[in-house]
Amino acid sequence: MTIIAVDAMGSDNRPAPDVAGSLLAARDLKGITIILIGNEPRIAAELNKYDASGLDIHIHHANEEISMIDKPSAVIKSKPNSSIHVGIRMVRDGEADAFVTAGNTGAAMGVAMLRRVGLGRIPGVKRPALGAVFPIKTRPFLIDGGANADCRPEQLLQFGIMGSLYIERVTGIKRPRVGLMSNGSEEGKGNTLIREAHALLQASDLNFVGNIEPKDFANGRVEIAVTDGFTGNLIIKASEAIAIYIKERLREEIQASKIATVGALLSRNAFKTVANDANADEVGGVPLLGVNGVVVIAHGSSSERAIHQAIIKAKIAVEHKIVDAIREGLA
Amino acid sequence: MTIIAVDAMGSDNRPAPDVAGSLLAARDLKGITIILIGNEPRIAAELNKYDASGLDIHIHHANEEISMIDKPSAVIKSKPNSSIHVGIRMVRDGEADAFVTAGNTGAAMGVAMLRRVGLGRIPGVKRPALGAVFPIKTRPFLIDGGANADCRPEQLLQFGIMGSLYIERVTGIKRPRVGLMSNGSEEGKGNTLIREAHALLQASDLNFVGNIEPKDFANGRVEIAVTDGFTGNLIIKASEAIAIYIKERLREEIQASKIATVGALLSRNAFKTVANDANADEVGGVPLLGVNGVVVIAHGSSSERAIHQAIIKAKIAVEHKIVDAIREGLA
Repeated sequence: MTIIAVDAMGSDNRPAPDVAGSLLAARDLKGITIILIGNEPRIAAELNKYDASGLDIHIHHANEEISMIDKPSAVIKSKPNSSIHVGIRMVRDGEADAFVTAGNTGAAMGVAMLRRVGLGRIPGVKRPALGAVFPIKTRPFLIDGGANADCRPEQLLQFGIMGSLYIERVTGIKRPRVGLMSNGSEEGKGNTLIREAHALLQASDLNFVGNIEPKDFANGRVEIAVTDGFTGNLIIKASEAIAIYIKERLREEIQASKIATVGALLSRNAFKTVANDANADEVGGVPLLGVNGVVVIAHGSSSERAIHQAIIKAKIAVEHKIVDAIREGLA
Repeated sequence: MTIIAVDAMGSDNRPAPDVAGSLLAARDLKGITIILIGNEPRIAAELNKYDASGLDIHIHHANEEISMIDKPSAVIKSKPNSSIHVGIRMVRDGEADAFVTAGNTGAAMGVAMLRRVGLGRIPGVKRPALGAVFPIKTRPFLIDGGANADCRPEQLLQFGIMGSLYIERVTGIKRPRVGLMSNGSEEGKGNTLIREAHALLQASDLNFVGNIEPKDFANGRVEIAVTDGFTGNLIIKASEAIAIYIKERLREEIQASKIATVGALLSRNAFKTVANDANADEVGGVPLLGVNGVVVIAHGSSSERAIHQAIIKAKIAVEHKIVDAIREGLA
């Protein structure tokens, strides 16, 4: 039985998608117990909208709330009874196997990383990192997706190791290919950080293919792209911005012409397939790798589908003993 | 009369698009003289394919060639008679008003920046930078697009000043809005470089709007986005990769269905409009700002249309006295 603690007060539209997504997961997955964490009356009211009979789903009250605009540095210490704190402590204390939240990312990372309030880092881990899956067909994995804005070369090496262990465990791909995201694929390209990290990755036991560019990443040349959290986050955000831009421009141009509108209706399944592929909700959430427990962070605008997927991701990480894998891999 | 020196041996398919694009410009623009630089017999043979009678277009021989795989650091000193060297010296010596090249970007930047072989920096300029225009409808301007992989905060401030002067001159927009590209729009977001640059930009006379994210950039919230050359280059490359990915995925899905294929035929004008908008060839080239002369760098895969646009961009920069504007602005 895998016990997943879910932050019911996490998403922008809480608790609706958080609760509905948990119900989907409880129905869909075998051998799973879900504990919804947060304001008990609000969660109960939401749960009552559905038929949850026979599902292994429970509520655990947490009386403090963290909003998206709360400064992580402030709330990590000042709100010890938030749903994020309570959920992460349950993982620490063995009352849950994983924690899933669509709440304040900075707060979730901070609480997870600090041993005093949460899980703490796995021994030897310099900085935990977010492993972001790109919502494109090849589903490439980028680490760090935004946990660490400033990085040192040794941290990038560890991101490569943690990402490699994670992908090997969850996908079964042996010795997955690791690339270093740079502004050119030739060796020597990049800034000082990238050039120094390149040397470390080259000397490691990883299946390191060298520098890669975003197009290599999109084309599936690697399973794992290593980057600092600032660059990684901007690559994700630039990709999202361009995808939305193209979608809106196409809609604009199609709507401006009657015949194009008819054409688009005929080809709407093709559009839908591509859009579904690229739907961030299908990815669900990203694992925070390097902490003493499984924590999956979903985006604030998560739908119930996204929460469902994030719970699946958490269950897989628990079943494949990702924390042990990283602990052993870094030992 | 504006004299534009064009590297005829620059593009991947040289000299065909370089010569054809120059002919388009010579026909299209008033008050322009074009000097094609490079291997005289090859350029002459290419020119002979067209009717160039009455056009103010000439050939200037350069007997060395730089390829895309040449290391800039090696060729800057070892090939003083390449088309890049000869063209940039003509600008330095007042024989041409601007130089346009689709050749090796690193070599062109290096030759332009070094006073001994080329133009040198405008007094006070710490590092010249590439001003990249995004091929989307709002045509946002990003500086640095890739000249400097490692930057200091004062350099980012200068990029903002140079970009602001350039955009004000060429577009006529008074006090264009300047944003600092970051992983969140709130103040305090970003890595150390960004946080320090934020303080400098805030204290400057620029119309600084604070941190921006890629979506703000795509939506036209600013005229100018400031970034280091590593991040800037990756944002450009990630955007290109995603645009190509979406295009190919749509094509794939549409071709898989007969009815979708018919639909796409009916809406093909809408697709074409969006694709043309997003065509990097329409942008043509990017100015290298901060050197003692007008240099416009086009991408290696430039079509004749791209060369044509790059020449227009060079002519506008000359007419608006961009170099004087930056010299005065930084004095």
